[in-house]
Amino acid sequence: MLDTIFYVAITAEAMSAALAAGRRNMDWFGVCVIACVTALGGGTVRDLVLGHYPLVWVENPYLLVVCCIAAFVPIVMARYMAALRWPFLLLDAVGLATFTIIGCNVALEMGQQPIIVIVAGLLTGIVGGVLRDILCGDVPLVFSSELYATVAIVSGVLYYFGHISDLPHDLVVIGTIAFGFTFRVLAILFKIQMPKFVYDKELR
Amino acid sequence: MLDTIFYVAITAEAMSAALAAGRRNMDWFGVCVIACVTALGGGTVRDLVLGHYPLVWVENPYLLVVCCIAAFVPIVMARYMAALRWPFLLLDAVGLATFTIIGCNVALEMGQQPIIVIVAGLLTGIVGGVLRDILCGDVPLVFSSELYATVAIVSGVLYYFGHISDLPHDLVVIGTIAFGFTFRVLAILFKIQMPKFVYDKELR
Amino acid sequence: MLDTIFYVAITAEAMSAALAAGRRNMDWFGVCVIACVTALGGGTVRDLVLGHYPLVWVENPYLLVVCCIAAFVPIVMARYMAALRWPFLLLDAVGLATFTIIGCNVALEMGQQPIIVIVAGLLTGIVGGVLRDILCGDVPLVFSSELYATVAIVSGVLYYFGHISDLPHDLVVIGTIAFGFTFRVLAILFKIQMPKFVYDKELR
Repeated sequence: MLDTIFYVAITAEAMSAALAAGRRNMDWFGVCVIACVTALGGGTVRDLVLGHYPLVWVENPYLLVVCCIAAFVPIVMARYMAALRWPFLLLDAVGLATFTIIGCNVALEMGQQPIIVIVAGLLTGIVGGVLRDILCGDVPLVFSSELYATVAIVSGVLYYFGHISDLPHDLVVIGTIAFGFTFRVLAILFKIQMPKFVYDKELR
Repeated sequence: MLDTIFYVAITAEAMSAALAAGRRNMDWFGVCVIACVTALGGGTVRDLVLGHYPLVWVENPYLLVVCCIAAFVPIVMARYMAALRWPFLLLDAVGLATFTIIGCNVALEMGQQPIIVIVAGLLTGIVGGVLRDILCGDVPLVFSSELYATVAIVSGVLYYFGHISDLPHDLVVIGTIAFGFTFRVLAILFKIQMPKFVYDKELR
Repeated sequence: MLDTIFYVAITAEAMSAALAAGRRNMDWFGVCVIACVTALGGGTVRDLVLGHYPLVWVENPYLLVVCCIAAFVPIVMARYMAALRWPFLLLDAVGLATFTIIGCNVALEMGQQPIIVIVAGLLTGIVGGVLRDILCGDVPLVFSSELYATVAIVSGVLYYFGHISDLPHDLVVIGTIAFGFTFRVLAILFKIQMPKFVYDKELR
């Protein structure tokens, strides 16, 4: 089941990344790169940092093909994309929780310490979007927008404690996804943000 | 032969990167860093992603020295650089095809799947320029300018099929470089670009 | 002793990174990420490039906790931070030399060649700040400001020659830190900069 949701999430990430690339007037190649980097970049950085070779997409290169095909959907259907804002946000919310769980699983299988399990989930969930923003020349949204990383962290903590408990694995997975999804959607609906740190004076 | 062209290409990349750094008024150290990152960054990211250690320049550190020396040429000869625009573009076109072949070879020697062979060539060919643009604070040129990545991809595909065919290896190398060079020069001359995806509406 | 200074330096880096994040109005999560990336990013990139696993903070995840706690100090004490400009600059100068030595040591233990030892020290000393600037949307300061990278390079060379000489190790460490600290402070006081390469004409 996690696998199916993984593909849906990858596709949704690639499609919304393509829209970000389209807003910068990138060419079709740039759109595909941004789609691949956004959808697969989180897992890539996690694997580099943990030394977990081979990388997911090096082992399964068809994932790159999936991302490139997904990237062309918004190109073909650009006029309908604005109407699909909410479906995308909902898929992205499911994807965030799913990516987090997959990232935690990789670290758990490697026998990493609890903090690193949470960090692996966090990296998998958010780094793709950070790389997308850097390649598009923006300050990453995730550092200043509605709760996103917080959802990944709290979902990761929840999943970790579910994992070491006696609860059945499927229940923990479904529960974590349901929690992460609800938390993220509430954050968007009510514009819940982390407190900001506003500092004016020049230090350096 | 590939080795000789490799050094010429590294040097040309380092020199044109130094010009990009000079346009941002960087100091000499910054110029050297941008030169090294541009000339060696593509191979570095390829090796990180494939887990191919040790990295080329860690094994042959004098490559860093070559890049730094090359970076000083534009500093000393700044007034003549504008006149050298075409020689640089031609060397860069040879370099693009050469880097692509070298990247494909690394993946082939590791026994990677065909798509990853092409991707390894692509990463080697273009990532240096992407990192240069990010360090200079620009949206990477390669996503919106004349055909560049496409040249690397098509050259990579050509080289891969040449490699698995019965053709002599040298012929395949020379043929791929000739093709990549011609394709890139034609793209510059006739301003051939990939179709762009222009998307105005705000999704997020 | 190097360990103690390492923690002080990590903390100082994390705190001044938090101020940079605060100037971009990031939220608390963004502040923590920028703090961790700045304090630990140099060592991370060094380890990735050298294939030196596990990474320092993956093995000692409490370092992430230290950075996050340090990041909250400027949030709580924002009004006093401007007065602490000099203490921070001094700590940062000690940190630069310390990070450089630690980076050199990692490469020396791996039996790397002399140039790579210096580069490992340089990466450890400056990459954290480069990543901080990229994540904040700036052209990295280190490429155009007062001597910083130069201090790391010269300190690394000094440490390397001290290391292969017959001098006692502690003396070499203390001497290198004293030299790096003095050199950096003089560079700030007298606004010593590397010569700049200013290039106006458009090559591409």
